[in-house]
Amino acid sequence: MTWEVLNIIGTMAFAISGAIVAMEERYDIFGVYLLGYVTAFGGGAFRNLLVGLPISDIWAQGTLFTVAFVTMTIMFLIPFHWLMTWNRWGAFFDAIGLASFAVQGGLLALAAGYPLSAVIVAGVLTGCGGGIIRDLLAGRKPMVLHQEIYAMWAVLGAFIVGLGVIDTQTEIYILLAGIVMMRSLSIIYKWELPSRLNWLKLIHFKNK
Amino acid sequence: MTWEVLNIIGTMAFAISGAIVAMEERYDIFGVYLLGYVTAFGGGAFRNLLVGLPISDIWAQGTLFTVAFVTMTIMFLIPFHWLMTWNRWGAFFDAIGLASFAVQGGLLALAAGYPLSAVIVAGVLTGCGGGIIRDLLAGRKPMVLHQEIYAMWAVLGAFIVGLGVIDTQTEIYILLAGIVMMRSLSIIYKWELPSRLNWLKLIHFKNK
Amino acid sequence: MTWEVLNIIGTMAFAISGAIVAMEERYDIFGVYLLGYVTAFGGGAFRNLLVGLPISDIWAQGTLFTVAFVTMTIMFLIPFHWLMTWNRWGAFFDAIGLASFAVQGGLLALAAGYPLSAVIVAGVLTGCGGGIIRDLLAGRKPMVLHQEIYAMWAVLGAFIVGLGVIDTQTEIYILLAGIVMMRSLSIIYKWELPSRLNWLKLIHFKNK
Repeated sequence: MTWEVLNIIGTMAFAISGAIVAMEERYDIFGVYLLGYVTAFGGGAFRNLLVGLPISDIWAQGTLFTVAFVTMTIMFLIPFHWLMTWNRWGAFFDAIGLASFAVQGGLLALAAGYPLSAVIVAGVLTGCGGGIIRDLLAGRKPMVLHQEIYAMWAVLGAFIVGLGVIDTQTEIYILLAGIVMMRSLSIIYKWELPSRLNWLKLIHFKNK
Repeated sequence: MTWEVLNIIGTMAFAISGAIVAMEERYDIFGVYLLGYVTAFGGGAFRNLLVGLPISDIWAQGTLFTVAFVTMTIMFLIPFHWLMTWNRWGAFFDAIGLASFAVQGGLLALAAGYPLSAVIVAGVLTGCGGGIIRDLLAGRKPMVLHQEIYAMWAVLGAFIVGLGVIDTQTEIYILLAGIVMMRSLSIIYKWELPSRLNWLKLIHFKNK
Repeated sequence: MTWEVLNIIGTMAFAISGAIVAMEERYDIFGVYLLGYVTAFGGGAFRNLLVGLPISDIWAQGTLFTVAFVTMTIMFLIPFHWLMTWNRWGAFFDAIGLASFAVQGGLLALAAGYPLSAVIVAGVLTGCGGGIIRDLLAGRKPMVLHQEIYAMWAVLGAFIVGLGVIDTQTEIYILLAGIVMMRSLSIIYKWELPSRLNWLKLIHFKNK
C-alpha cells in the first residue's frame, strides 16, 4: 500500500514537471500530455528495456495513467498563481518521486538477480530516465547532467540497495527519507558535483 | 493489397521528409539516408518496442527498404525545381502516411489484446514516432509538439480503432479518408491546438 | 583473445570521447561518467535491440565496465597537457574502436541469420550508435551526420561482412586494418561525403 501512495505522489510530481517544461517550450496540449507521460513513465520503460523485463508491463499501470492524465489536465487549466504555489512544493514531491522510483528500480533489478552495476543503472534510469527523455524532447540539455546534485542520490540509493543490506520495511523507509532529505538539501544549499570548467576554457584558448 | 499501396506511399513520403530535413541541416549523404530511414521505419520499431512485439520484425520489410532507398537517392539527385514541386504535394502524401501508419499501429495493438491506452500509444507512435526521432537527430524540437495539428489526428484515429467499432474494410477506408482530410484542413487553415503561451510570459516576467 | 584487446582499446577510446564531450558541455562528474558509458556501450545495446538479441546481455561485460570507469576517472583527474596529448592519439584509437565494433556487430547479425540490410545496420549501430546518443545527450547534432567520413566506413565494413566473404582470421584483420586506415585518411585529408548545401540556400532564397 505504501508503494502505491509513493508511486502516485511520484507520478504526479513527474507528470507535472513534464507538463511545465512543455508549457515553457510553448508546446501545445498534445506536447504537454506527451512530455508529462514521458517524464512519469519513460524511466520505468527504459529500465525494463535495459534489465530485460517486458516493456509491455507498463500497460498494467492503468491507475497511474489516469492519475497522470487528471493531474496534467488540471495543470493546463488552473490559474497562474496556483502554478506559482506549485513551484514551492514541486521540488519536494519530485524528490519523493526520485527516491521511491530509484529504490523500486534497484529492488526490481536486485530481485531479478542482476549484478551491482545493473542494479545501479536500473535505479538511476527509473529515477532520472524520464526526466532525461523529457529534456531531450524539449530540445534542452538534460537537467540531471549539469545542475544541482540529483542523479547522484539515485546512484547512492540504488548502490545501497545493490549491496543487499536493505531487508526490512523500516530500512526501506529510512533509505527513502535519506534520499529525499539529501535531495532537498542539494536544492536549498545549491550543492553541485565537481566539473571541469577549466578544460573548456583551455580548449577555447587553444582554438584562438 | 491496399495496405501495401498505402504503406509504399507512406514510406516514400516519410523517407522524403527525413531526407529534406537532413539536407536543410547540411547533413551529408549518410545523414540523408539515416534520417530518411529513421523517419520511415523508426515509428514502427518504437511501437513494436512499447507493445512488446519483436523489434526484429522490421527486417522483414525488405521491399519497403528498397523503396525508401530509391526514393532518397532520387531526392538527392533531382534538380531543385522538382524538389519545389514536391513541397506542394508532400504534405498530402505525408497525411496518407500518417493516417495509414496510425490506423495500422492501432489495429496491431488491438489485435494483440492491449487496452485502449496502449492502442492509442501504438497508433501515435507508428504515425508520429519516426518524425520525432528525425527531429531529435536533426537537433530540432519535435515538430509534432508545437505546430499545426498533426499527432492529434493519429490519437483520434487510434482512439476510434481502440473502441473496436471498426470492423469492415469500408469502415477502415472511411477512417483513413477522414484522418487525411482533417490533417489537410489543419495545414490549409493553420489549425493549432491550444497552448499556454502566457505561462511562459509569466515566468519571464517573474524572472525580470 | 584478439577481440578482447580490440574491445578494450575501443571501449577506452569511446569512453574518453564521451567524457571529453561531457567536460566541453560543462557537465558535472555524473554527466562525465554517463556520457562515457553511453558512448562505449550504447551502440551495442541499441544493436541488440534492433537485431532482437537480449539487451540484458550487456551486463555480462563486467570487465569492460571497470575499464571504462577507471579510464574516465583518470581523464577527470589528469593534468591538462596530458589531455592535449590524447587529442593527437585519440582519433587513431577511436578508429580502432569504430572498426572492431562495426565488424563485430556485423558478424553478430550475420551469425544470427539476418539479411544484408540488418547486418549493415547492426554494424553501423555498434560502431556509431554510442556516439550518436552521446551527441544527443550533449545537446549537439550527431557528429557522424555531418563531419568527416566516419559512419560510411562502418557501412562499408559491415557490407563486406554481410556479403559473407570474410571467413578466416586473417581476412578479418585485413578488413579491420583497412577501416582504420580509411578513417585515419578521412581525418588527415578532411574527406567529406557529398551534401546538398545549395538546397539550403534555395530554401532561404525562396523564403526571402
